[in-house]
Amino acid sequence: MYKVDLNSDLGESFGAYTIGLDGEVIQYVSSANVACGYHAGDPLVMDQTVSAAKKAGVAVGAHPGYPDLMGFGRRNMVCSPKEVKAYIQYQLGALMAFTAAHGVKLQHCKPHGSLYNMAAKDMELAMAIAEGIYSVDKDVILLGLAGSKMLEAGKQVGLRVASEVFADRAYQADGSLVPRKQPGAVIHDKEEAIARTIRMVTEGKVTAITGEDVSIDAHSICVHGDNPSAVEFVKNIRAELEAKGVTIAPIADIV
Amino acid sequence: MYKVDLNSDLGESFGAYTIGLDGEVIQYVSSANVACGYHAGDPLVMDQTVSAAKKAGVAVGAHPGYPDLMGFGRRNMVCSPKEVKAYIQYQLGALMAFTAAHGVKLQHCKPHGSLYNMAAKDMELAMAIAEGIYSVDKDVILLGLAGSKMLEAGKQVGLRVASEVFADRAYQADGSLVPRKQPGAVIHDKEEAIARTIRMVTEGKVTAITGEDVSIDAHSICVHGDNPSAVEFVKNIRAELEAKGVTIAPIADIV
Amino acid sequence: MYKVDLNSDLGESFGAYTIGLDGEVIQYVSSANVACGYHAGDPLVMDQTVSAAKKAGVAVGAHPGYPDLMGFGRRNMVCSPKEVKAYIQYQLGALMAFTAAHGVKLQHCKPHGSLYNMAAKDMELAMAIAEGIYSVDKDVILLGLAGSKMLEAGKQVGLRVASEVFADRAYQADGSLVPRKQPGAVIHDKEEAIARTIRMVTEGKVTAITGEDVSIDAHSICVHGDNPSAVEFVKNIRAELEAKGVTIAPIADIV
Amino acid sequence: MYKVDLNSDLGESFGAYTIGLDGEVIQYVSSANVACGYHAGDPLVMDQTVSAAKKAGVAVGAHPGYPDLMGFGRRNMVCSPKEVKAYIQYQLGALMAFTAAHGVKLQHCKPHGSLYNMAAKDMELAMAIAEGIYSVDKDVILLGLAGSKMLEAGKQVGLRVASEVFADRAYQADGSLVPRKQPGAVIHDKEEAIARTIRMVTEGKVTAITGEDVSIDAHSICVHGDNPSAVEFVKNIRAELEAKGVTIAPIADIV
Repeated sequence: MYKVDLNSDLGESFGAYTIGLDGEVIQYVSSANVACGYHAGDPLVMDQTVSAAKKAGVAVGAHPGYPDLMGFGRRNMVCSPKEVKAYIQYQLGALMAFTAAHGVKLQHCKPHGSLYNMAAKDMELAMAIAEGIYSVDKDVILLGLAGSKMLEAGKQVGLRVASEVFADRAYQADGSLVPRKQPGAVIHDKEEAIARTIRMVTEGKVTAITGEDVSIDAHSICVHGDNPSAVEFVKNIRAELEAKGVTIAPIADIV
Repeated sequence: MYKVDLNSDLGESFGAYTIGLDGEVIQYVSSANVACGYHAGDPLVMDQTVSAAKKAGVAVGAHPGYPDLMGFGRRNMVCSPKEVKAYIQYQLGALMAFTAAHGVKLQHCKPHGSLYNMAAKDMELAMAIAEGIYSVDKDVILLGLAGSKMLEAGKQVGLRVASEVFADRAYQADGSLVPRKQPGAVIHDKEEAIARTIRMVTEGKVTAITGEDVSIDAHSICVHGDNPSAVEFVKNIRAELEAKGVTIAPIADIV
Repeated sequence: MYKVDLNSDLGESFGAYTIGLDGEVIQYVSSANVACGYHAGDPLVMDQTVSAAKKAGVAVGAHPGYPDLMGFGRRNMVCSPKEVKAYIQYQLGALMAFTAAHGVKLQHCKPHGSLYNMAAKDMELAMAIAEGIYSVDKDVILLGLAGSKMLEAGKQVGLRVASEVFADRAYQADGSLVPRKQPGAVIHDKEEAIARTIRMVTEGKVTAITGEDVSIDAHSICVHGDNPSAVEFVKNIRAELEAKGVTIAPIADIV
Repeated sequence: MYKVDLNSDLGESFGAYTIGLDGEVIQYVSSANVACGYHAGDPLVMDQTVSAAKKAGVAVGAHPGYPDLMGFGRRNMVCSPKEVKAYIQYQLGALMAFTAAHGVKLQHCKPHGSLYNMAAKDMELAMAIAEGIYSVDKDVILLGLAGSKMLEAGKQVGLRVASEVFADRAYQADGSLVPRKQPGAVIHDKEEAIARTIRMVTEGKVTAITGEDVSIDAHSICVHGDNPSAVEFVKNIRAELEAKGVTIAPIADIV
């Protein structure tokens, strides 16, 4: 029987600012990546998001990012590995206060935005992240891009790792994502995106942009709740996965 | 045999900014209040401070404050109890990442600056703090002003509490501090300050500014490492306490 | 002929966070209060907002607040008059960079949220604000609550001042607002709110919650663009004012 | 007769944090680069620094940086040119509030840290900075690294530019600095550093690390006030320049 996790970034609101349709998308995912106050999120939002995840039976993960609220963690910053490790520890710990308060276990950690992208290709940065997580709680699963340095680093330090795939992104022959700036990077046809995802989950394969089949581990699918049509897509992908006999389950049940 | 804790605020540096003679004062205290990144401190500083405390055999506590780096947490802010509770949880958790990483237990929590002063007199705020701590880790000791609402709230939620006294501050007949703006609020004579402290520890009494003796619980003495003369004072008060047969021990050994 | 200004808070978005229907409400107001990066707003948003105001023929004012992004400037903070003066100068100057870049004159300054409310009743704080504005540009108009200390302070330092009224708030016999916590503080009936506003503008009078008529200067009416119904109200109040022969004009044309 | 400017970064303190011996170094320089609250500095510090510069007869410049207080603006951040332009405008404007309040003219703008270094080599970033300055006040001089893209961009938009040299840094044959990571990048011998500087000022030449003479424009020399020995060096370099008949004068008198 096939199983896959659906993960979404939640708890990105901040103070008076609301972002994301958290209350809707949370109904369809199995894991929530909760912002930890550096690039998004604040203590009240973190508390509410962990509470909502618990209520919805959704596993909670940390979504730490660069200390760049103005840039939403989406701008590359050149921090030292020592800084990155400490930022990971700080944000993980902060979220664990709320999981402790709600009697929930912190399931995983998925770095956000630029930190995610930079660490996917930079072993030193990836090791800083993996070591930061391990030092705080060695049972937390590191969720990273399929085929990335992050997964390699996670394994190296002794963490369980989960491999994330994207429904709407094209892949290269080496299993990496086609950069967003290149034509064809994003799969706009929803049905095609869903069909590709189902194949990644059930066959462990995806057709690269150059035509050949590539092996890929699809432990978790990244989905979004930014707007109504994104939520609609999550609802559909979940329904079609289940129709194909795939069980939606949190990462901890999969890796 | 008499025992008392000496506590000092440490880890208040931030980024390129260094403040406090942490490396010196840490040699003479038994408990460190570590800033948690809201009014002071950053992840690297927190890591280094927990590491230094461990090395020096000094117990680690959290020193959470208002989210006001520009004001160093010394400006009154009217936050809701819900906000204060969440800020306490966030900062406590963040520090616990570093205590976990260094294999140290978080001993206590002492709110900083304006949060400390406001909660000393405001039961609702005090309860928010106490509940925040309890929800994250019910074994953490709440360190607050002798006779304050904070200790009352701590007991009410089921936390162990420790009563803090000040060597260089005058007390009123009801056991509260003489406000700083009033004449005689600060004891400038070092020997007198030390003698008063020894009496608080060994007799549980202090002479109020109005002349009468007041009962006071002296579990922990607040000392500072801001400048060389402050450090000198800590060194002296420790030596004179030990000369009178008082053992300096972390809070957890006292309450 | 009667004239009045309609002012609204704009440019409160921050980074990835969007708040307020700026593009809609800007069509109906004559003055924009632009957030300056402390409690809301960021440099890109400030640039866009000044540009949009210029295009819409709306006068630009500064909307400085406390340095509390997490609390949106709505939490009381006890800052010294010296700090407040410097925060006003900083934020005013920052916005003036964008008015200079767009070839627009900074018309007014209206403090935001808690700073506005605290300074309405605190002469020392009000003087700090007025002196801050005057020191940077003595031609900037201070927009403050009708009957407040802010207007008194503005006049005292030599600034032009404009008196702001609220369409949907009840007034006390002394001309001050009925505190929000008291029953009847908010006028929920839209038609009544508009009728009261027209009377304030054309007769300079408002009926206090205790029944008697109170004199009030209505140079500018505070309106909101938070949601579609708020925008609808602005559209209506403008139409009804104009129907009664009241011209909507920026503050600088009125005081 | 030879003239050169001595510039130093001042006003980098923040809240309770003091950094730099501003009061000492200000006596020996002719231009002050004042931090603007993004990577360092706060409104009170800016006010005090402009006031102190005015008193000391030192010209005031803006020292804008990346929005990264935790990293002191020393970490590369990938911001868009649009963002960088707006950050420059914001910070320049903020400082101009204080120069206006003190009746002083803003003389120049020297970007800080990583922004300075990145823009030295990146024409798009350099243009964003130059355009930001020009849009706010076209009379402000852009101070940048000798031979850098920043000076090229400044000229292109129509700003006056000033070329900065470093007393203690080795140069390459193309006039660029030897990167800090390479051996010989820093001239440790104080007398040699001073002699090289005098030659840059009086002959417009510096010996490259590879031996040949390189032409260089030395309008302004960057000096530091971080510690007593740095201040001593500033005092000495000023005395030796004056002994050679070189007049120390603010940038505006030179370019």
